[in-house]
Amino acid sequence: MSGGPSTVTGDTQRIAAELIGLEEGALRRWCDGDPSGFLEISADDVVYFDPFLERRIDGLAALTVYYESLRGKLYAPRFELLNPVVQVVGDAAVLTFNYVSYGEGGTASRWNCTEVYRRTGDSWRLIQTHWSFTLARRA
Amino acid sequence: MSGGPSTVTGDTQRIAAELIGLEEGALRRWCDGDPSGFLEISADDVVYFDPFLERRIDGLAALTVYYESLRGKLYAPRFELLNPVVQVVGDAAVLTFNYVSYGEGGTASRWNCTEVYRRTGDSWRLIQTHWSFTLARRA
Repeated sequence: MSGGPSTVTGDTQRIAAELIGLEEGALRRWCDGDPSGFLEISADDVVYFDPFLERRIDGLAALTVYYESLRGKLYAPRFELLNPVVQVVGDAAVLTFNYVSYGEGGTASRWNCTEVYRRTGDSWRLIQTHWSFTLARRA
Repeated sequence: MSGGPSTVTGDTQRIAAELIGLEEGALRRWCDGDPSGFLEISADDVVYFDPFLERRIDGLAALTVYYESLRGKLYAPRFELLNPVVQVVGDAAVLTFNYVSYGEGGTASRWNCTEVYRRTGDSWRLIQTHWSFTLARRA
């Protein structure tokens, strides 16, 4: 890292904008039934949690099998990515946000999300994804 | 990073053991009603999700208020930290695991957890914590 604090802040802001853009692009495709947006930005060693799984998914091959089982099945005409925060540590960055997707009947689903990205060269790839329901109930 | 792949693997294994040890120590105190173990290893800019909150908690001051409201109220005679994976990216490390806590009646609570640690000097501190129920139901 070169330069003073203002440069560091500028770097963080630039990276934050880039990662939020990546995430929104993948979410847009996800909400149109297309999981490839997320698969294209996930690293080989990605790990993944969501509330429908009994245990963590490890690795892009296993995540691909899971996501392909959902292809064409999920639609949301509208979503909101709320209050994003990006924390940068060298070539790692943590993006956290609250997320609301609106179903075709207007029903809102509320989520917490943590994404961890790793930079290799100029490319950021997801190494960890954790989706959970906001104010969930136990199974 | 110096040395070849075997050195890198050795570093990752050493860091993994250290972080799992930190986490187990904080969990042991948590399960005895003491949130200070987690507070002592959390950074000023920590962000936090759990299923009881409407939105993310931002920063150690706010997390301290929340944790202090739970002091002395949570007990679990036994817990299991299952299948931990640690991904190291320079001075950042992601620890993911499944977690089961057993209440005094033996009831099991099952969780997904993502912890992101940042290294400053020789110390690792949490910058992100995400707890969610395994196989949760919507609120």
